[in-house]
Amino acid sequence: MILSLDHIAIAVPGLQAAIQRFADDMGLTLSGTEDVPSAKTSTAFFPVTTPDHPAKIELVSPLNGEGPLVKYLEKRGPGLHHLCFRTDDIDGDVARLREKGYRFTSDAPYPGAHNARVIFIHPKSASGVLIELAQFPDDAKHG
Amino acid sequence: MILSLDHIAIAVPGLQAAIQRFADDMGLTLSGTEDVPSAKTSTAFFPVTTPDHPAKIELVSPLNGEGPLVKYLEKRGPGLHHLCFRTDDIDGDVARLREKGYRFTSDAPYPGAHNARVIFIHPKSASGVLIELAQFPDDAKHG
Repeated sequence: MILSLDHIAIAVPGLQAAIQRFADDMGLTLSGTEDVPSAKTSTAFFPVTTPDHPAKIELVSPLNGEGPLVKYLEKRGPGLHHLCFRTDDIDGDVARLREKGYRFTSDAPYPGAHNARVIFIHPKSASGVLIELAQFPDDAKHG
Repeated sequence: MILSLDHIAIAVPGLQAAIQRFADDMGLTLSGTEDVPSAKTSTAFFPVTTPDHPAKIELVSPLNGEGPLVKYLEKRGPGLHHLCFRTDDIDGDVARLREKGYRFTSDAPYPGAHNARVIFIHPKSASGVLIELAQFPDDAKHG
């Protein structure tokens, strides 16, 4: 029986730059690294869920056969599409990450699912991963 | 400040078949669906973490510049690579999923990171997603 999600893996050409990105830039905590000789890989782990907010798998499909996802699916087929991080200060994070040179796919956050304000970091800025930042009404830093 | 992982999104051409896969085949619980007209998407959510086991982001890179990941990176570049689900009965799950027509990338589970027994479902069997099943010593169903 499947119990839970253990991890999401991101393939990178080397660990060091990616560790710096997820630790220093995204603020995640590195719990450790491990070489796996049987798979010929080096790995680094960042715990990224909290007890009070289960992470979800989101299936996302085009609404009424329209929208940008149609072209994505034609080009790439179905598969892993993006990660979304919760933040309590989306405007502050966007400013901070822009300062570090991160590019976003829009100028400012806009309304997403579940009444969140969302914005996407361009995959070219983030180890090939499309990363959504989402601030939910409950997570507002100031009231 | 980034608080936690909110979700991992999987792009699919339509929700129904994928909902069936993740609910009926993988045993996850569908918490709801939502159309997001602003993004022209339909979405479905499956909570997939438990309070006692944080999910992790794993960075994975070739060990000493060797192994199958080298070719993967040359072909696809860096990016989202796979999801891993914890199971308490990997042999039972493999048998059950094979029965349903799922293909795996090896005949049987083998040793992975963190002393787990692991096996991968072929992405062609799983909406384009490479899915690892992992049974950790602590999660053994019998003893």
